[in-house]
Amino acid sequence: MFINEHFLKLSAGYLFPEIARRVATFAESNPTLAPRVIRCGIGDVTEPLPSAVIQALHRAVDELADRRTFRGYGPPSGYEEVRAAIAEGDYRSRGIEIADDEVFLSDGSKPDASAFLEIIGAGNRIAVPDPVYPVYVDTNVMAGNTGASDGRGSYAGLVPLVGTPQNGFVPEPPAQPLDLVYLCFPNNPTGAMIGRDALAHWVRWALEHDAVLLYDAAYEAFIRDPSLPRSIFEIPDARRCAVEFRSFSKNGGFTGLRAGCTVVSKELQGRTRDGRRVALHPLWMRRWSTCSNGVSYPVQRAVQALYSLEGRQQTAALIDFYMGNAAILLRAMRELRLPAWGGSNAPYVWVACPDGLGSWDLFDRLLREAQVVVTPGAGFGPHGEGFFRISAFNSRENITEVAKRLAGLAALAAR
Amino acid sequence: MFINEHFLKLSAGYLFPEIARRVATFAESNPTLAPRVIRCGIGDVTEPLPSAVIQALHRAVDELADRRTFRGYGPPSGYEEVRAAIAEGDYRSRGIEIADDEVFLSDGSKPDASAFLEIIGAGNRIAVPDPVYPVYVDTNVMAGNTGASDGRGSYAGLVPLVGTPQNGFVPEPPAQPLDLVYLCFPNNPTGAMIGRDALAHWVRWALEHDAVLLYDAAYEAFIRDPSLPRSIFEIPDARRCAVEFRSFSKNGGFTGLRAGCTVVSKELQGRTRDGRRVALHPLWMRRWSTCSNGVSYPVQRAVQALYSLEGRQQTAALIDFYMGNAAILLRAMRELRLPAWGGSNAPYVWVACPDGLGSWDLFDRLLREAQVVVTPGAGFGPHGEGFFRISAFNSRENITEVAKRLAGLAALAAR
Repeated sequence: MFINEHFLKLSAGYLFPEIARRVATFAESNPTLAPRVIRCGIGDVTEPLPSAVIQALHRAVDELADRRTFRGYGPPSGYEEVRAAIAEGDYRSRGIEIADDEVFLSDGSKPDASAFLEIIGAGNRIAVPDPVYPVYVDTNVMAGNTGASDGRGSYAGLVPLVGTPQNGFVPEPPAQPLDLVYLCFPNNPTGAMIGRDALAHWVRWALEHDAVLLYDAAYEAFIRDPSLPRSIFEIPDARRCAVEFRSFSKNGGFTGLRAGCTVVSKELQGRTRDGRRVALHPLWMRRWSTCSNGVSYPVQRAVQALYSLEGRQQTAALIDFYMGNAAILLRAMRELRLPAWGGSNAPYVWVACPDGLGSWDLFDRLLREAQVVVTPGAGFGPHGEGFFRISAFNSRENITEVAKRLAGLAALAAR
Repeated sequence: MFINEHFLKLSAGYLFPEIARRVATFAESNPTLAPRVIRCGIGDVTEPLPSAVIQALHRAVDELADRRTFRGYGPPSGYEEVRAAIAEGDYRSRGIEIADDEVFLSDGSKPDASAFLEIIGAGNRIAVPDPVYPVYVDTNVMAGNTGASDGRGSYAGLVPLVGTPQNGFVPEPPAQPLDLVYLCFPNNPTGAMIGRDALAHWVRWALEHDAVLLYDAAYEAFIRDPSLPRSIFEIPDARRCAVEFRSFSKNGGFTGLRAGCTVVSKELQGRTRDGRRVALHPLWMRRWSTCSNGVSYPVQRAVQALYSLEGRQQTAALIDFYMGNAAILLRAMRELRLPAWGGSNAPYVWVACPDGLGSWDLFDRLLREAQVVVTPGAGFGPHGEGFFRISAFNSRENITEVAKRLAGLAALAAR
């Protein structure tokens, strides 16, 4: 059997397994220091699930214990009432026109971003941010949408949308025409947030070039500034050019429970090689009904509970808590006089490494000298080199301790 | 953006949504008869989850309610102890050598069978059974592994392995060389089961032709005859040529909870175009860690509970119950003097339509005249025409009622 040789192009292990490997190696070689390790690397939540979610889960489990209320296979894209709660709670209540059946419930935005490539054809000109959430790149490599690796995390054929301190890590639409563009705001890894005018500019550009924008809004809940767009569909024309990914991992703390959703409007179209227009909604629906049996029933009820009054209040409290952590980290970096971004409308703080230090070197030094795990910017692409990401997902105690440890650290002293 | 035009080859809606549509149309036009409808179409369980599973789910939910026991992201292929329970319970305790890390936990065998195509390359000669579980065909069409449809459910480039009453719906290896072969035993839809010698013959053939066998053992729990193989890995050489899919949908009743697993041995290899051998295990692992964050934590604990002593006893009782239903259905068909297969080591009974009646016509007549939903054989491929499938997944009361209604039915009278 012939294998998919595109996998062999992948230059290294996926970022987070590599971090886990280095931390495990450190812990093995330094058993006395191992208990001191604090992980601010991967963006994994630490706080328990909101009680509204816990109650909904218990109730759903009890339904499955009784043949009168038992549920087997559900609709592949989620129960109607769950999709309605999302469409109403995140969109229609904010004046955004999204129908219940334009919401597709899934087990996460990472699987969704990956699966979306199944409905696109060959020959698309694709752009990804740099620095980038590595999943956008790796899934395109695996799907055969790129050429070879340059050994630094870039692949031939993928157009980089470069984020720098100069553009505030919010790239502008390029001059060249493209077919598919990944955007992620609030941004992972930089914590940058796009303004409404800049987003409207992207939408106009996409319609002009007949391009599709894949808008990853997984961190939407962390937006504090009410003037910033919480969805690309706040720009009405986005219905004709955008797909939005949402996650319940970070707002409700579902990283272990697993749920997200994708919004595909019925107006969104792609095209065939010979120029016919084809709606994407039925393709995505067909992909779901053929390849999946939908999301675990109790998890669906857990999602629905996030949109109850209690669920909303409890989620808001969780977000406040993590954003309090982000503020502590941001302040610590400023006291170290290290240039830092994010942390205001996102749970990530993005920091420039002290001059001359590579980001994996910095990662290793922070692990060795302070037992603090961050994410090296190089793991997010060539333009991530020279930066590192600290995640605010942790206990207050740990975040305070991290701030204290980093303050006294030679590796971080501005030169 | 260019779409994946292979989707446009798909000849009709996926089978089960089409059945659901016809039933809904019938119910709307016949509101007084609608409450009488009994569904023996889709293989969806009806009995509540075993109490060992319910308890495990509640416990896991409580863990997520407490920050000391909270779990976020887990290993992409499942927690070690859950994979160990599967490897030990289904394999090592039966003398089959499978390591814990050769088990990949997932949200179902349908998603797994679909995702497997992501790690295979173009140019493979692929065979699927006929009659066939439609997912094998449709996912290959979508992945671009076929040519055009012939309008009857076959696609150019897919080699059919024809099941007939003559071969007992157990196809033999063909003379021609192939690269990838789907086998499903106990079979969906025919209920046929393969013997050990016949399976060993397939394994020898696969090794000889450097082919990979995708062995779908989703219905393994229904095997009653102790002489029949419960896993392809009972044939030791299968480690070098087979992948096995397992499901918890039908043994534990997880159709709504969602869990399955795939077993990929570390000895299994594919090859590159230029003839190098490449192990599939790391490719599949890379696929999982890049595209997924694994299975919902409470669901993983539910899977583990199936392997406890209580869980095993309760599952066995569930299986006994459904197999009692299958026996009733099989007897009813024999009393009607309709040739029937399956129902002994599988929860499906496969029945020849009375002479001259097409399977969709029979479906419509059974719905109209008896309000019984079966699955028309034509939905399973060209060689399914002339047959229909009845599922034993239902309450005893419903199954008894179905047997009674069908017994008096003109549509089924032998001619």
